[in-house]
This record gives sequence, C-alpha cells and structure tokens, in this order.
Amino acid sequence: MLVDGSDIGQRSETVRRANLSAIARGLHERGPLSRSDLVAATGLTRSAIRSLVGELASAGFVTEEGAVRLGTPGRPSPLVRPDPVSATVLALEILVDSIAASIVGFGGVQLEHVRQDRPRLQLNVDDVVADLATMAADLRARAGTPIVGVGVAVAGVVRRSDGLVSMGPNLGWVDVPLGARLDRVLGIRAPLVVTNDADAGVLAEHRRGAAEGTDDVLFVSGEVGVGGGAIVGGRPLTGAAGYGGEIGHLPVNPDGAACRCGATGCWETEVGEGVLLARAGLAPDAGSAGVDAVLRAADAGDEQALAALAHVGRWLGIGLGGLVNVLTPRLIILGGLHGRIHPYVRDALQAELGRRALPAPRALVSVVPATLGDDAPLVGAAELAFEPLLADPAAWFGRRGAMHLASA
Amino acid sequence: MLVDGSDIGQRSETVRRANLSAIARGLHERGPLSRSDLVAATGLTRSAIRSLVGELASAGFVTEEGAVRLGTPGRPSPLVRPDPVSATVLALEILVDSIAASIVGFGGVQLEHVRQDRPRLQLNVDDVVADLATMAADLRARAGTPIVGVGVAVAGVVRRSDGLVSMGPNLGWVDVPLGARLDRVLGIRAPLVVTNDADAGVLAEHRRGAAEGTDDVLFVSGEVGVGGGAIVGGRPLTGAAGYGGEIGHLPVNPDGAACRCGATGCWETEVGEGVLLARAGLAPDAGSAGVDAVLRAADAGDEQALAALAHVGRWLGIGLGGLVNVLTPRLIILGGLHGRIHPYVRDALQAELGRRALPAPRALVSVVPATLGDDAPLVGAAELAFEPLLADPAAWFGRRGAMHLASA
Repeated sequence: MLVDGSDIGQRSETVRRANLSAIARGLHERGPLSRSDLVAATGLTRSAIRSLVGELASAGFVTEEGAVRLGTPGRPSPLVRPDPVSATVLALEILVDSIAASIVGFGGVQLEHVRQDRPRLQLNVDDVVADLATMAADLRARAGTPIVGVGVAVAGVVRRSDGLVSMGPNLGWVDVPLGARLDRVLGIRAPLVVTNDADAGVLAEHRRGAAEGTDDVLFVSGEVGVGGGAIVGGRPLTGAAGYGGEIGHLPVNPDGAACRCGATGCWETEVGEGVLLARAGLAPDAGSAGVDAVLRAADAGDEQALAALAHVGRWLGIGLGGLVNVLTPRLIILGGLHGRIHPYVRDALQAELGRRALPAPRALVSVVPATLGDDAPLVGAAELAFEPLLADPAAWFGRRGAMHLASA
Repeated sequence: MLVDGSDIGQRSETVRRANLSAIARGLHERGPLSRSDLVAATGLTRSAIRSLVGELASAGFVTEEGAVRLGTPGRPSPLVRPDPVSATVLALEILVDSIAASIVGFGGVQLEHVRQDRPRLQLNVDDVVADLATMAADLRARAGTPIVGVGVAVAGVVRRSDGLVSMGPNLGWVDVPLGARLDRVLGIRAPLVVTNDADAGVLAEHRRGAAEGTDDVLFVSGEVGVGGGAIVGGRPLTGAAGYGGEIGHLPVNPDGAACRCGATGCWETEVGEGVLLARAGLAPDAGSAGVDAVLRAADAGDEQALAALAHVGRWLGIGLGGLVNVLTPRLIILGGLHGRIHPYVRDALQAELGRRALPAPRALVSVVPATLGDDAPLVGAAELAFEPLLADPAAWFGRRGAMHLASA
C-alpha cells in the first residue's frame, strides 16, 4: 500500500488504520507489550503510539495497566494488554478421527474447547455439520463473547474463496460446499474461512509453536493421509485458489501402491498410517490404537514393528529430501502420526534425507516434532479467523454491541 | 513498512522515497506511462505524481513528452518515459553450453548483448571469470552508460547472500565464490547479485514473458540438468538462503538411475537431456545438436526417437503432477530443452499430469513453452540487478557522474 504523507487530508485515515492494524497484530501475536515495546516494534513515535493505543482502549480491545519499570533507565512504560473477551473467534476442526471446536480470545487465549473422537468412516457431511453447530452453540453460550470470525480446518483440499472441499480423500468427501453449509447453520454474522488442516497447522506452529520466528517452514502431518503446509519467506504457501501444500500426493514411487486420490505411488502410500500398520502385521485400519500397539511392540524389540517403522522412516526421508530441494525450509515440523513416531524413525529418516537433499539446503534444515499436538489445526483456524479484525481493527470499533447481538 | 502520516517532520522523507520507488518500478516494469496512468497505478494524487516525476526527471531518469490525448475526456496527460541510458545494469549468464552478457537499460531495454557457445566440460572457473570480464568490458565500452547493478545467473545452487555457488553439478563446480571473484575482476562499484539460472528465468518470464500478471508460476528449464524456479503469491520462492527451487532433484524413482548430485532417481535422471539422447540411440553427451537430430528423427516417424520423447514426456508429467499438488501454480512454463521438445511431448505429459495431479489444482494449471528462449536467465539477472535502484531511486540521485567514473 502506498501512503502519501504529503497529502494528509486524503490519506491520514489510511495511515491511521494501517497503524492500528500493526499494533493490534503485535499485541495479538506477541501478547502484552509496553508502549516502549510498541515504539520499538512499529517504528512509530511515542505520541502516535499513545494516541492509537488510546483508540484501541476506548473501543474496549485493550487495557492499559500501571506503568512497569523496565531494567533500563527512563520513565516507566505502561503495559498494553489485549483483552481476550473483547473479541473472540470460533474455531472448528474436522479430522478423520475427531471433530473439535474452540473459542479463542484476542491475544490467542483459548477460552473454551471441546473435542469429540469419532469412529472413522462415519463422517457423513450432514452429521458433521449438525454436530459442529451443536458444539459451537454450546461453547458460545458458555463463553458469551462477541464473535468476530469463524475459522474451519478440514482434512481435505479446500478452495479458499468459498470453503468448497473439492476433495477429502480420507473423509470420502467430494465437492462439499462446507463453508456455505456451516455459514448457514451457525448463523454467525462474521466472516467464515475454511482451510486445509495442515495449512492451518503450519500457521499455528509459525505463530505459537515450534516455528515462531522462522520464515521458511514445512509442516508434515500424517493421519490416514499425509497433509502438508508451508511458510515460505514468512508467508503461507497457499498456491492458486488456496489448494497448495498437498505433499501427500508427491509421486515418490510412480509404479507403487494405489492411492486414495486415484494415482499410484503417492508419498502417503509409503508413509501413511495404513502402511505402517500393515507392515507391522496389523489391520491397516487399526487406527490410533494400532499405532500405539506398534510403538509398544517396537519398545519391546519386535522385529516386524521395527522394520515397519524403518520403512516409514526411510520413505519420510526420501520425500522430505525432495521437498528440501524444492522449498529449502529451515525447519520441518512433524505433526500427527509423524510427530508421534519421530523418536522411532529419526535415524532412518535422517540417513535418507542426507542422501536425497542437496548438501547446501540440507545443512540449513532441522526436523522436529510439532509442539501444539492434535490442536495445531484448531489453533491455526483461530488465527485465520482473526485476520479480518487484525487487518483493520477500526472497522470493528463500535460494533461490539452488534457482535453480541449477532452471536446471541 | 509503517508510515506515520501524523508526524510528517520525521517521516515524510520515508514516504517520498517509497513513492519514488513505486513510480520508478511502474515505469521500469510497464514502460512509458502517462501521469494519469501513474495516478491510477499508485493511488497518489495528481499533484504528488507531478512533483515526484519532476524529481525523477531532474535526476535524469525519465523524460516527459508532449501531452498525449487519450480516448477519454479531460486534459491530456503528459507521457513519462524511462530513459534507458540513464541507468543500466550488466547481466551475465553461465550455462552449461554457453556464457552470455548484456547491458540492459532502465525500462528493460537491452542495449548490448553477446553470447558465446562453449564446448561442454570446459567451464573452468578461472576461464569463465576471465572471459566474462572481457565480454563485460567490451560491452561497457560500447554502451558507455552508468552501471547501477550487476546480475549473474548461473546453472548451480547459489547462496544469495554472497553469490557462493555451493554446487553446480553440471558445471563440475563445488563451493565456488563466484560473486566475490566476479566482483573483484569486474571492478564495478555497484551491487552484484548472483542467482540460480532458473530462478532468474522465472523472474524474467513473470516480468516480461509468458507469466506477466500471473501470481503462481512454475518455471522448468532443462539443459543437461533440470532447473526450476517458482513465483508463489506473486513473490519469488527463494527458500532459506536462496537455495530453493531445485526441482531437478525431486526423488521420483528412488531406486532409479544415479544422479550427478549423488542420489538416485532424481527427476532429472528421467527427463534430462542425457536420458532423451540415450533412449533415442545417441550418445548422452551429444548435446543440443543431438536433440535436433532426435526431433528430426521424430518428425520422420522414427520409432526409437518417438519412444524416447514419450518417456521424457511421461516423466515430465509425473514430476509436474507432484509439483502441481505441492505448489499449485496457474502456469507452468517449460524452458530450454523442455520448451523445445514441448510440441513432441505434450500428449504424454498431459496424460500423466492428469493422472498425478489432484483434480482441483489440475483444473487451474496450464503448461506452455517459455517465450523468452535462451535469454530468460539473462533477462532475469538484469531484473535482479535493477532491484537496488528500484527500491530507492533517491539514493542514486546525483550519483550519475560517480557511476560514470566507476564504470569508466
């Protein structure tokens, strides 16, 4: 955005709103900050910060606490604190094994949370939408806070513009207008955004998890399938229409096994939950409990379990090697299944990664398990839902009453 | 960047320089524009545009021509034209088969150009550096223009910060400090930047070629190896340290042929020049003339040549399918070898791409040959070299004399 400081009459409103946005974003992402911190973080003058923080306080979004004395000389600087109940979002998550909902407050504080494990293959769209609506109504009644946005993370390929799930191979969904259906049944007058679960996961780990402060990140998260999300140059890799990051469908073994997507030898056919379970001698649909059994067997030295883990570790390394060459992340975060098995597959993974990745990008990258666990997509969905507020807080001034009504 | 319009004393200089940058960038990328076009493109007021264009004109970077009357009512608007000799860059290119140099003027006009084909395996670093220095001196003497930047595109993995070529598998280079060596021998007092040839190629196609106006682009360019560059969300995908985009080293056939990088079954072992030539019954190092022979044989209906092209086409489709799933470009541009063979491999490529790419991203992407031909990396190197000028034209005001001296 261009800002013409020589023509204040026309442009000062734009400048003011952009600066309010920068302050709100700083407080949301980093938590309470002193006015001095805000001066340092934004490059604005002390008087500009005082005035802008005053506006946010009048609108009810922040409180200013008594001055805190820092270790440095000079006047103490009041602490500006985001008020978590002043603006909240509803986050929803649809994975293969569970659905979940939460209410998250400004500043990233989770106020309410519920997760419901579900038997697989029972993710009928009507049931999921109805159950999420019930969960949401229940959480909103408990929280009683104004909702400024709704974020939904789903294990599928999502068109960002309208929340169409064009394909959820492991949910059995094709062309499900999830955004429109949820919007109708929730009845919340606030923006709703739907995203892929791994895209939400990487955003969460980037903002509030293992990847804070890292600008090039790859998030790999396995359940039945393998999802991926990436941050490149500090920004989410969404690709055209928001479809990006489907790393589970990299062809790593083109004459290999059939994939749920219709192709053969996709990466997820070599590193997904089913192949781990089958190679360990269990039913490929034994699910999370089956994975627990494989890890217990491996702990006991069971050869077949160890071989199954070595197979998955080797193919993880092959696929990650290719992705390191293309995307050169500094950090690879393993979530879901791959976070759980990481201690068991680390050596096989690293050995193969060393063979596949070019030396220069290989030297820069670390592989770590996710820190946010199963909730990463839910946390990321909440972050996405906050975007409209953070992009232009002034647009929400004076609307808190209306938001309460809308959410009542 | 935050701009505080409420505190003009401190910030107006920042605002002015940012606005000069926006105007210079618009003129460089889009060519001559009327003042009205600039108002529309930047959102600045007419008076601000007049004043800023006046500054650029005083500094010698633009000329204003007689007012042009547009098809619309109102006063005619003077045409602002970038002066190509006011600021020029030196662009250099090092590929496996050739080296090239050019002088490009502000606005993207190529003023001088020379390409030298070289026998392969004779890319001794010392010789290349010395020959490029000679070519550069010759072009600069002919052009006689001030040089504001130097851009170098090289077929290798490049660390952007200092131009170290960590690996150029097909040049036989390892850890060559190309940036430092060229900087020393060229003796030009202007910023020098080194980049991978395909990263430069995609930038060129994005600014001045097939991908103008497209924000998600993948560029694939084969010579002996296969390079790649991508634009994601309108920005170059550089990855950590600038190493990104080495798509030739995606593992597509992990138990396949040995690759020059040390791994096996990298994509370039299935779609590079060598495999095409060998499968067509020629020596794998028969080079560009060999490729011509294969295409002539295919035109004559030769079975072996057609089978070789079908093989490369199929594997192109496999790798592109995976890359479509990960990056979801709207446009895939085939350069170098793959641009040349595109008419012969289109059907096999599309058939396999249809099987490998998920339907939603598949529906959005087109595959086209490059429009800039062999010069794409050179054009992209020039664009990169213009960055310092475009980012802050005011820093160059009054320095044209000095630039002339530096380039003398």
